[in-house]
Amino acid sequence: MFLQGGGTLQFAMVPLNLLRKSGKADYIITGSWAKKAAKEAKKFGDIKIVASSEESTFSYIPEVKKEDFREDADYVHITYNNTIYGTHYPYIPDTGDIPLVADMSSCILSEEIDVTKFGLIYAGAQKNVAPAGVTIVIMREDLIGFAKGTVPTYLDYKVHAENDSAYNTPNCFAIYVAGEVFKHIKSIGGVSAMHDLDVEKAKKLYDYIDASSLYKCPVREQDRSLMNVVFVTGDSDLDKKFVAEGKAAGLHNLNGHRSIGGMRASIYNAMPMEGVDTLIEFMKKFEAENK
Amino acid sequence: MFLQGGGTLQFAMVPLNLLRKSGKADYIITGSWAKKAAKEAKKFGDIKIVASSEESTFSYIPEVKKEDFREDADYVHITYNNTIYGTHYPYIPDTGDIPLVADMSSCILSEEIDVTKFGLIYAGAQKNVAPAGVTIVIMREDLIGFAKGTVPTYLDYKVHAENDSAYNTPNCFAIYVAGEVFKHIKSIGGVSAMHDLDVEKAKKLYDYIDASSLYKCPVREQDRSLMNVVFVTGDSDLDKKFVAEGKAAGLHNLNGHRSIGGMRASIYNAMPMEGVDTLIEFMKKFEAENK
Repeated sequence: MFLQGGGTLQFAMVPLNLLRKSGKADYIITGSWAKKAAKEAKKFGDIKIVASSEESTFSYIPEVKKEDFREDADYVHITYNNTIYGTHYPYIPDTGDIPLVADMSSCILSEEIDVTKFGLIYAGAQKNVAPAGVTIVIMREDLIGFAKGTVPTYLDYKVHAENDSAYNTPNCFAIYVAGEVFKHIKSIGGVSAMHDLDVEKAKKLYDYIDASSLYKCPVREQDRSLMNVVFVTGDSDLDKKFVAEGKAAGLHNLNGHRSIGGMRASIYNAMPMEGVDTLIEFMKKFEAENK
Repeated sequence: MFLQGGGTLQFAMVPLNLLRKSGKADYIITGSWAKKAAKEAKKFGDIKIVASSEESTFSYIPEVKKEDFREDADYVHITYNNTIYGTHYPYIPDTGDIPLVADMSSCILSEEIDVTKFGLIYAGAQKNVAPAGVTIVIMREDLIGFAKGTVPTYLDYKVHAENDSAYNTPNCFAIYVAGEVFKHIKSIGGVSAMHDLDVEKAKKLYDYIDASSLYKCPVREQDRSLMNVVFVTGDSDLDKKFVAEGKAAGLHNLNGHRSIGGMRASIYNAMPMEGVDTLIEFMKKFEAENK
């Protein structure tokens, strides 16, 4: 389905549609968006935080086992890629019979996904798919149809499913662009080929950071995101200098989120290898000048 | 404010935000969209239909006086221009101290509006403003902040007002195009100049229809829309022939809504006078051939 309202509307739609039996859902907290999703869900049900890496500024993805979830939970929610903290799940949590819901806004189309392992996947299109203003929802058909009568019509997945995403006038332009992006990815060999390119880009950048004596990536190695590469110098004044000089050199938006500072390079599918190369060249120059 | 989700989401947001005291709201039913708005509002409060022109297939706008509204209604809702039935309010209902809410999706920017007479105006952008996917909301500041804690965050006007429409990633492309359209309208003399052009286009078409012996406009004269001109031949087979031959001649989407049949010419701001002239030429030719 194609919906409007971004991931933030999904934070409400997921509980309003999937809290269908016990009214309980379990959330794993791996960043600001996961926290927002859980906070919104608390308006509508009994939400339990089963694991969190907040104590370590979300620098890793917690290992969670089937036994950690409540047996009668209506669903489990995860944020598969964490934009701000540069982490990504290195595994798909085993939730047994409990449907797994994943926010894939910042990693969709960067890797092949076995959708059968998820009850519902949602992804704002604005990172890897299309201009902002449309959200992709992929859900199991047997999970459709549980919204109560008091739920606003627009927030009922059933309405959108039954009307082929055209219950209201859809964001035609963004959906058109999404179609062009899908065709482009198919033309280069599909999502697995896109993934290979993403791995190549990210590996080059992480390898340089790990080998450098100035820069450091705070994220545990196996949990690193292919899309969002965060790094610091360890000196917040030097970080600010890096961001300012980067901007002057034409490298924009390298500042980390205000909640963690440091730097973040978002290298979504549309970023070519040349962009990564240019960043590494700049990082080398800055390192040489700031020994 | 710029929001996502179209007029259909506003059908829920209006009651969820404005049912703030008595929980009562009064609706005037002038077409399918007005009915849908009232039906959605009934999920959330005590909704009274104070007037309707349904008995006459919505061919006119009811006259409603201040005394017709419930004294303690939290708001009154109207659909200012009715796309399907080709009607438009020839007056702004006097609701006294009760805030007036208007859906202006299909007429915004076609006439100057005294916004101080309304508590809230909403308009899907896809007719006269921008590509589909963004809705404009203009509301009185003192009406912001009444959504209950159980309302989904995205559906609280306060959240969007406080975040300058950027609580979630906005539909940047549509908002950009809207800005270009605003500039264009300013450059030709503002909304009043646009209105003059719209009147000229609509008058030419209605005058031709009224003078013709084949075509008839079912809408009462003072209630006719500048944007949507509906007409019939009085013979549904001939109507179908008209639509089919029009399409073959390059005049698309002339069929009326399936609920009323006949024909409908939507002549939004972007339709040039040449489009109206071409339609009239075709209508004359068809009339001559089908005497």
